Amino acid sequence: MSEITFRVVLVEPKYEGNIGSIARVMKNFGFSDLVIVNPPPLEDFARAMASHAIDVLEEAEKVETLEEAIEGASLIVATTGAKSTKYNEFARRPVYTPEQLRKKLEGKKGTIALLFGREDAGLTNEVIGKCDLVVSIPANPEYPIMNLAQAAGVVLYELSGIEGGKLELASHESLEQFYAHIKQLLDEVEYPKHKKRRTMQMLRRICGRAELTGQEIFTLRGILRSIEWM
Amino acid sequence: MSEITFRVVLVEPKYEGNIGSIARVMKNFGFSDLVIVNPPPLEDFARAMASHAIDVLEEAEKVETLEEAIEGASLIVATTGAKSTKYNEFARRPVYTPEQLRKKLEGKKGTIALLFGREDAGLTNEVIGKCDLVVSIPANPEYPIMNLAQAAGVVLYELSGIEGGKLELASHESLEQFYAHIKQLLDEVEYPKHKKRRTMQMLRRICGRAELTGQEIFTLRGILRSIEWM
Repeated sequence: MSEITFRVVLVEPKYEGNIGSIARVMKNFGFSDLVIVNPPPLEDFARAMASHAIDVLEEAEKVETLEEAIEGASLIVATTGAKSTKYNEFARRPVYTPEQLRKKLEGKKGTIALLFGREDAGLTNEVIGKCDLVVSIPANPEYPIMNLAQAAGVVLYELSGIEGGKLELASHESLEQFYAHIKQLLDEVEYPKHKKRRTMQMLRRICGRAELTGQEIFTLRGILRSIEWM
Repeated sequence: MSEITFRVVLVEPKYEGNIGSIARVMKNFGFSDLVIVNPPPLEDFARAMASHAIDVLEEAEKVETLEEAIEGASLIVATTGAKSTKYNEFARRPVYTPEQLRKKLEGKKGTIALLFGREDAGLTNEVIGKCDLVVSIPANPEYPIMNLAQAAGVVLYELSGIEGGKLELASHESLEQFYAHIKQLLDEVEYPKHKKRRTMQMLRRICGRAELTGQEIFTLRGILRSIEWM
């Protein structure tokens, strides 16, 4: 088994044709783990677009919540075509290119969940806020919004042939426990309430960028415990 | 105007949806010059897939022959998903990745025609044989054949943001005149007839790789003339 594996997570996609196209391009680039949150009915057109990747389409896991879709993943990556300032800048920064993502993940070990949002609305700010990293494909500012299957194709093209390694990323679950621990500490030290949400958001971004291992999280939580003892 | 421009040439595409998708991804990556050889009727589905790139679709030039489509281009690039040995290996070698193509074209000046073949059959060996370069997207050997629009998307993604330069490529026309000149010389020196086709093919590949400028062609034809005089 490869040291680094990718799971494509489609969050409430609208059109079955795109799902079939994504199954095809996944197989073209050697990927097979597809999870769909609340898919539309997958019928003839999805199968036609999947072409010889009908196996990827048929073996796709269908779930009802994002939590089920990302279960067991080490790193949750949001994809977005919207870099506009009208969105919550704070939640969306820093934004990596697919190439930068590949470089960050080289030599790593773990399961990476790649989240793609709904065709018309993309991923919500709430979902993006919970992800460890944000990726956006550099595109023409006059028309940056790509077709969902095309965007998935480009990201998978960049990630195909990536060389994994032995550096095992912490699980998303242990990261969440770490964040909960920090939040608890902020409560204990009476950190200003109105700053808390943005501070937590910033910490998520920093930890997402830092590609923490399980051992590092263990040590960091030890520090938090020492502080709490004091 | 950018020093290097790209023209997407679709050779007898079958499905209007793919044409619309290609118009969209062209605009996403900042390209607008689309030429289609014998397109199918472009109706509602093509327009739906083009989305906000309806201008690229509507301004696409429709022609009846490949010769019209590549008129004025400096370099003709064939794309192919088929690297199988059952094809004419000689005509298809060497095969560049989109990334290698980008690197070859950096710093150059000219119009590059990117040819994409029909969904079911790709470009014919005859067309590929006439091109200056062949490009193929590295893909899963178990299922390398990509959807046409996805393949165009990946190639355009790689070429977007390329930095052109001042090194002006020779026109495809002057290259053709150079090849005709060599062929004439081979006749004059009674080069073995049965070897001629493959030798000419090889020379096309070499010159395609060498990215000749107009000045270089001029000098090379001067050498040919000196040989003829002798």
